[in-house]
Amino acid sequence: MQRVFSSKLFVSGSSLAIGVGVGAVLVGFNTDNDSRGFKSHRGVLERVPVIPIPSVDAASDLIPHQPGQVGISKSTAAMKYGFPSLANIKTRESYVTSYDPRNRTAAWVIEQLNPETLTGSSDRKCCEFKEDDSVHIYHRATNADYKGTGFDRGHLAAAANHKWSQKAMDDTFYLSNVSPQNPHMNQNAWNNLEKYCRSLSKHYLNVFVCTGPLYLPRQEPDGKMYVKYQVVGKNHVAVPTHFFKVLILEKPRGEVELRSYVMPNAPVDEKIRLERFLVPIESIERASGLLFVPNIMKRTNVLQAITMGGRS
Amino acid sequence: MQRVFSSKLFVSGSSLAIGVGVGAVLVGFNTDNDSRGFKSHRGVLERVPVIPIPSVDAASDLIPHQPGQVGISKSTAAMKYGFPSLANIKTRESYVTSYDPRNRTAAWVIEQLNPETLTGSSDRKCCEFKEDDSVHIYHRATNADYKGTGFDRGHLAAAANHKWSQKAMDDTFYLSNVSPQNPHMNQNAWNNLEKYCRSLSKHYLNVFVCTGPLYLPRQEPDGKMYVKYQVVGKNHVAVPTHFFKVLILEKPRGEVELRSYVMPNAPVDEKIRLERFLVPIESIERASGLLFVPNIMKRTNVLQAITMGGRS
Repeated sequence: MQRVFSSKLFVSGSSLAIGVGVGAVLVGFNTDNDSRGFKSHRGVLERVPVIPIPSVDAASDLIPHQPGQVGISKSTAAMKYGFPSLANIKTRESYVTSYDPRNRTAAWVIEQLNPETLTGSSDRKCCEFKEDDSVHIYHRATNADYKGTGFDRGHLAAAANHKWSQKAMDDTFYLSNVSPQNPHMNQNAWNNLEKYCRSLSKHYLNVFVCTGPLYLPRQEPDGKMYVKYQVVGKNHVAVPTHFFKVLILEKPRGEVELRSYVMPNAPVDEKIRLERFLVPIESIERASGLLFVPNIMKRTNVLQAITMGGRS
Repeated sequence: MQRVFSSKLFVSGSSLAIGVGVGAVLVGFNTDNDSRGFKSHRGVLERVPVIPIPSVDAASDLIPHQPGQVGISKSTAAMKYGFPSLANIKTRESYVTSYDPRNRTAAWVIEQLNPETLTGSSDRKCCEFKEDDSVHIYHRATNADYKGTGFDRGHLAAAANHKWSQKAMDDTFYLSNVSPQNPHMNQNAWNNLEKYCRSLSKHYLNVFVCTGPLYLPRQEPDGKMYVKYQVVGKNHVAVPTHFFKVLILEKPRGEVELRSYVMPNAPVDEKIRLERFLVPIESIERASGLLFVPNIMKRTNVLQAITMGGRS
């Protein structure tokens, strides 16, 4: 297989910097020399506790049969590039998710988009947001938690991505697939990003989308760094400071392209081009506690990351 | 087996209230009628996705063999009452832990104390705090992260609990078993709580201690609730707002007693009696995203919770 080489992938660092630089560039993931803290990528795979990619069978063993869950179905396909983490995995008709019981929302949700999933007669008017009764009552978000907060119930796996099946669309309305989102952001810039993800399905063999919340620190006047986020409702549902979307795009000949976005959970001028929200995947991996690249590298030798010119 | 009945266990609610009421009382966990959101405890075990108690074999399957980890050993015993969660489980010579890669510290650490583990010639002077190289470099705390922060490297599983083996004591010095702790609290009130745990080993057949961080919300002047915590060092190691200790105490005839404590990560007047830090286990379960009681109930029909008079 062809390999893409690059002397430096992106700036290594623990902080997530957003919106620096203009214009997207292709950056190749070098399998022999990367900036991810190791000299050899082959070395990484040997030394680092890469999150195992469960086989379909292994994954189904991980998944308890709980109310509101369906068996392994189309969602299985979403597992191709492994799981960013292995905590509280749930499979639904349209996605696979890892639930964060402390913050009462998902840690991540992976779905697969292609022309087939995007086509159909499913109607979101038939859907209602619902509690996820597979989550213990102590750790579950309710509709009442959102009421009067000023936040939207923002989908992580978007409803419009799953027109192929009413059940698949219904499943996106579990509150475990929802986070409190700023309405302006949800209905404009974030919505545009979701539409963009769908549009990519015309140009790639497959589009895998992993979406999740971030709780990013920032410096306060005392010079120290703090993570601060609101919690809403009786169940203290966390309001993420930001959201990420990691797009794993399949091209012919086994090549994989990676686009990773971070958007603040705040009003976002929708005139800002989506490319401005591209960030190095490393930033999301550091901030979220998740890992994407090691698992993806198990499936391809050619990983190209679309990132900002100023960061590469 | 004998059952202990009580019409109400403790005040149900989503907030963690600390230090209310004086004097500890025994509160029985009612297996037929409880306040945990269900009418029947038997119903709970059937309906709620109770975290499975991995058998020793199953647990060892979950645990990847990574550098710095040892095989199943004494730590296996600590698994008796299951795991509060199943994410990033690691076994060490002296404890089992679940790592929180986003916050760069443990989510919980379980250890077993008895006269055997507390006796021996191990010396903490031979120990040094060390990075946990089983954690990916992106999510790992380093000694440098703590330097100059004013926080102690506070053990979760305490070193002095594991005099029985130098290796066991060494393993408590992994930074994955450490959180940034206020020095006054660490060296006084928290230290007293650790000593108290050790003293209980004289009075019970076995003492299981589960320790972990909490990130508790509080109301700000705008009337909204916020979680806010500092992060330190280049790797943004979270400074928990509080810590919990859940003590699972084995008595004769299969009876189990539960004592659950929460202490703020701030200077604590050590004249305050430890009983003042007792909280209902439900509060810790809600705030931490973990579950203790369903697993414990699989092992006993008689669970007595020591809690505050004012809360029962």
